[in-house]
Amino acid sequence: MSKILVTTVPFSDKNTLPLEIIKNNNIEYLINPLNKKLTEDELVDMVSDFDVIVAGTEPITKKVMDAATNLKMISRVGIGLDSVDLLEAEKRNIIVSYTPDAPAPAVAELTIGLMLSLLRSVQISNVEMHNGRWKRFLGKRLSESTIGIIGAGRIGSGVLRHLQGFKSPKILLNDINQNSSLNEKYNIQWADKETIYEQADIITIHTPLTKKTKNMITKSQLLGMKEDALVINTARGGIINEQDLYDVMQAGHLGGAAIDVFDFEPYDGKLREIERCILTAHMGSMSIDCRIRMEIEATEEAVRFLTNQSLKSQVPEEEYAVQRRGL
Amino acid sequence: MSKILVTTVPFSDKNTLPLEIIKNNNIEYLINPLNKKLTEDELVDMVSDFDVIVAGTEPITKKVMDAATNLKMISRVGIGLDSVDLLEAEKRNIIVSYTPDAPAPAVAELTIGLMLSLLRSVQISNVEMHNGRWKRFLGKRLSESTIGIIGAGRIGSGVLRHLQGFKSPKILLNDINQNSSLNEKYNIQWADKETIYEQADIITIHTPLTKKTKNMITKSQLLGMKEDALVINTARGGIINEQDLYDVMQAGHLGGAAIDVFDFEPYDGKLREIERCILTAHMGSMSIDCRIRMEIEATEEAVRFLTNQSLKSQVPEEEYAVQRRGL
Repeated sequence: MSKILVTTVPFSDKNTLPLEIIKNNNIEYLINPLNKKLTEDELVDMVSDFDVIVAGTEPITKKVMDAATNLKMISRVGIGLDSVDLLEAEKRNIIVSYTPDAPAPAVAELTIGLMLSLLRSVQISNVEMHNGRWKRFLGKRLSESTIGIIGAGRIGSGVLRHLQGFKSPKILLNDINQNSSLNEKYNIQWADKETIYEQADIITIHTPLTKKTKNMITKSQLLGMKEDALVINTARGGIINEQDLYDVMQAGHLGGAAIDVFDFEPYDGKLREIERCILTAHMGSMSIDCRIRMEIEATEEAVRFLTNQSLKSQVPEEEYAVQRRGL
Repeated sequence: MSKILVTTVPFSDKNTLPLEIIKNNNIEYLINPLNKKLTEDELVDMVSDFDVIVAGTEPITKKVMDAATNLKMISRVGIGLDSVDLLEAEKRNIIVSYTPDAPAPAVAELTIGLMLSLLRSVQISNVEMHNGRWKRFLGKRLSESTIGIIGAGRIGSGVLRHLQGFKSPKILLNDINQNSSLNEKYNIQWADKETIYEQADIITIHTPLTKKTKNMITKSQLLGMKEDALVINTARGGIINEQDLYDVMQAGHLGGAAIDVFDFEPYDGKLREIERCILTAHMGSMSIDCRIRMEIEATEEAVRFLTNQSLKSQVPEEEYAVQRRGL
């Protein structure tokens, strides 16, 4: 009998459908009993028996696959594939699917919220007020800002769409592929990353984590930004070097930052010391509607696999190519 | 020689122009030396000498005017007139001007930020993370919400404009005057307040404080809202009864609140105990551009008065009518 390991948690929490899909198909399952993002070793200990992993962002490495002797499919709840060694999976004929569209709307909305909170120091005033200190901050407006968006895919273009409700922010956009339909729809300016670092008041990252984007922003890029620039990472930990971000902010550079994703999660690092750095717990895709959609799509795909139906969202070849070329 | 008392603080902080305008006209001035919002008694002690007050939101009452024997003009930095006894001013031929347009863009942007923070529990996750606790919250999206806007003036319609960048939130709008141009521009539905309380996921207040809006939302209205409704007040303290808001939230009702304005400021009350209540220090208009514009406009108006030029933004008759009719 087939068995699914669900590593992503919480799962089927606000809507029981994902679990019902599994149960209705009489598939055995285990939901991650540690109720947290698993480390490689924890996953190794857990995985031996299972045919399919309905996966979060825990590392699914060669070592994990060596231990997972029955594994035939990985169904990612989400879009990022940096956590999965696609080339090792390919060697073993382990199918990998994902849910590329579902998380984007939630991440894009959160990003706009983080921009506005940073611009007005909402999170600092809130903490001060809750501690009985009336502290007012003079901020800036989104409409008056130059906004640099790095990565113009599903999420970046969602951010772009939300910005249309604000009068006349200047928008600088960067992507390896310049999608010309965005030029027709929006008043944007394509720019290289260096121009964005130099000119933007707000810089927000919406790229995948690859070898090429890992440490894309280190001390030198950060120090090249405006003294009061605001930096947002809702993409993946490691794209901005965490230690460097800490160092430059500790030294007084940057107006603020909002970091939702970390090298190691759960995060408990030094950025905690920086009041003007908003920290959230990898909640980009955590809206009920998007989360349910991700869980349902990933579970349905797993069930399709186990019941020999054709799959709907296998990871395309270009994602393998990224890892193959070490990009 | 004429003398201006500037009570609003900070003043001429990020841009020196407001103060230069005063100095260039050789006008004597005093900037509120207590560097906080003044109480009635503090203002009484300070005001005797001055011809003009460039005023914040401190109470300019009959008692204050009795003490201000030279007072000929009040130039409000901002739009709200609840702090000024217009009828007493009228009796004494004290001119009152204000800056009705300048604060709106900053308040509208902050409001959108507060909506997104509340929807995703950003402020709670941020506090938890800074304390070393990884706590994820499942939220909702703006695009999926029913949003009730009470007050469709400069700020409410700014909020409405910003929401256009988000796909298909349902918008319920309430105002004593239904501005039909909004129907042509936006996909909205006029609704009475009761319908908004009952149906909206997010309720945001953009009315002035008058006798009619004071305690507009008390326990009964709050309890009529959805269990997980989010309530935002960036308008004036007292429109939502603070004690009632505390009581219902303490008892578990409402998903969250964001309160920027209070009965008594600086605020140090019990809402501090409520983690899911974002508290900010009356920062609605506190964006550099809007604040500078407000200060410059109010200072220029004061100088116009003192140099016998015609005024540009005297408070219109309908504002007096509101106080006259005790609305």
